Amino acid sequence: MTHKELLAHYREQVEGALEQSQNAYPGHGLYEPCRYLMSIGGKRLRPSMVLAAAGAFGADPAKALHAAVAVETFHNFTLMHDDIMDKAPLRRGMPTVHEKWNDNTAILSGDAMFVQAYDALAKSDTASLPALLRLFNQTAREVCEGQQLDMEFEQRNDVSIDEYLEMIRLKTSVLLAAALQMGAIIAGAEEAQQKAVYDYGIHVGLAFQLQDDYLDAFGDPETFGKQVGGDILADKKTFLYLSALQFSDHGQRKALDGWLGQAHDPIAKVDAVRSIFLATGADNALKEELSHHYRAALTNLEQLNVVDDSRGLFRYLAQLVGERAV
Amino acid sequence: MTHKELLAHYREQVEGALEQSQNAYPGHGLYEPCRYLMSIGGKRLRPSMVLAAAGAFGADPAKALHAAVAVETFHNFTLMHDDIMDKAPLRRGMPTVHEKWNDNTAILSGDAMFVQAYDALAKSDTASLPALLRLFNQTAREVCEGQQLDMEFEQRNDVSIDEYLEMIRLKTSVLLAAALQMGAIIAGAEEAQQKAVYDYGIHVGLAFQLQDDYLDAFGDPETFGKQVGGDILADKKTFLYLSALQFSDHGQRKALDGWLGQAHDPIAKVDAVRSIFLATGADNALKEELSHHYRAALTNLEQLNVVDDSRGLFRYLAQLVGERAV
Repeated sequence: MTHKELLAHYREQVEGALEQSQNAYPGHGLYEPCRYLMSIGGKRLRPSMVLAAAGAFGADPAKALHAAVAVETFHNFTLMHDDIMDKAPLRRGMPTVHEKWNDNTAILSGDAMFVQAYDALAKSDTASLPALLRLFNQTAREVCEGQQLDMEFEQRNDVSIDEYLEMIRLKTSVLLAAALQMGAIIAGAEEAQQKAVYDYGIHVGLAFQLQDDYLDAFGDPETFGKQVGGDILADKKTFLYLSALQFSDHGQRKALDGWLGQAHDPIAKVDAVRSIFLATGADNALKEELSHHYRAALTNLEQLNVVDDSRGLFRYLAQLVGERAV
Repeated sequence: MTHKELLAHYREQVEGALEQSQNAYPGHGLYEPCRYLMSIGGKRLRPSMVLAAAGAFGADPAKALHAAVAVETFHNFTLMHDDIMDKAPLRRGMPTVHEKWNDNTAILSGDAMFVQAYDALAKSDTASLPALLRLFNQTAREVCEGQQLDMEFEQRNDVSIDEYLEMIRLKTSVLLAAALQMGAIIAGAEEAQQKAVYDYGIHVGLAFQLQDDYLDAFGDPETFGKQVGGDILADKKTFLYLSALQFSDHGQRKALDGWLGQAHDPIAKVDAVRSIFLATGADNALKEELSHHYRAALTNLEQLNVVDDSRGLFRYLAQLVGERAV
């Protein structure tokens, strides 16, 4: 099996387990929005990584399916609540839960979905449950902290690049890292190995998010999947934006400031801000940061005592962000 | 020590543990609203019952402190989110979190508080953790289901008394019952004993809520703690209201319907609706239902193999609602 096929195989197993998990709850009322959000897709990368890590450390990946369901269900819970906070109308091209129903439903069904995640986790082997629960709690807390920082940054004009990286570490990387470590825990891997695979996940996660920042500004509209320039139009303080600010001369900074809050000519705004990203070298700064995390991920990978095939899978995953797309 | 003193002693232990638990998180940002809500009080009855049940089944109550913190933290999380959904301006006489901050903060800090509850639970003995987690998850799910029913009932005109009782069982009783069973689990009580103390908690919880319904209409404004007539003014479909509807003649039903949605003369409305409650015998129907649950709670109590003092404490608690106040 190629790495791509193996990932597809894990994903298929995950989809089956997610469906089975959702079917254990009534299809109406409180649980209908959970089933809806879960059914509209997603790449299922995080839960697939739970299986991949379990397999890499020598366990039957099927043993990790409950933990995988927990991770993906938790992720969807955060989407349901984040979309309320961000007043987002669409998610994966479909109406968000608070749009299709209302805010109260999205709050309460989100809470129920959070419990569903713990429900799935509780089905794990008794032996690994305490460690899984501790890691899951820590991760859930950090994801909330990341969303909190993200919201705070919207109100601040002095966000540093380090603060931004810490925010995306919390908001997006820790869950991928935890997914990998959970697989390692289930396979009974040593703590040092757990840490190495966790750190690999952090760096891959950061690289993914940086890649997303890049593609939002410079991606191919045909393949990006989201509106190119969306971050620019939303005045998001991304890595590109913060780097551009840092490297800008007086005129560039004035131009950047001038576009803030402007909405009357979106095409001109995206074009102009993108030009400043290039002129200030923000794009290169991003590529360097991304490359740093790609290399750090590969270094973590070297520390793993896993079956060789698995290292290849993890390397393939890192390469998806490290080499191809940016 | 009298039962009252013992309860006060448990409460003091709980207060200390709650403070310690909150102090383990940063005092600003995401966690400040959690600390705020936790600090504005509450009777801490549920967490005290975790300690009481652990002691009753022969364990050191201190062993149950983490589970007690989990129960009270979860309870406060539900208050934070329920207050958003109910647009409640005040909680325990103080501004609610979404009023003092905003909706997004109350959503996200509520989520963080939910994780804090699981954080506390995860500190329990490894031996009892799987059973505690399963019960806690089930309870959390049911509490969400209860809130969902409560919101649905606001939109419906055909709520039956049985449906109402099921709603308050989910929304308020299961957490008290689970608190008691968690203490029993920690003490290693047999499953039949766990079930008996859980059922005792269900009946006491229902009796408490029915007493609350009664006092809302007929309580002494000096001692009730909330605005007397609050449920009537909010057109709440309480046990009294649903019973009055069921037992009303044509004129009484017309009068009840006429007051729905009326807000121009609150004093007249409360007086008139209260009179209909009395005229239809809704007050007696409530007293009978309450008495049924009081007696059922005492029957469950007889099945418990606990130290005699503890049975006395549980009886004292049931009597608080069963005999004195209504």
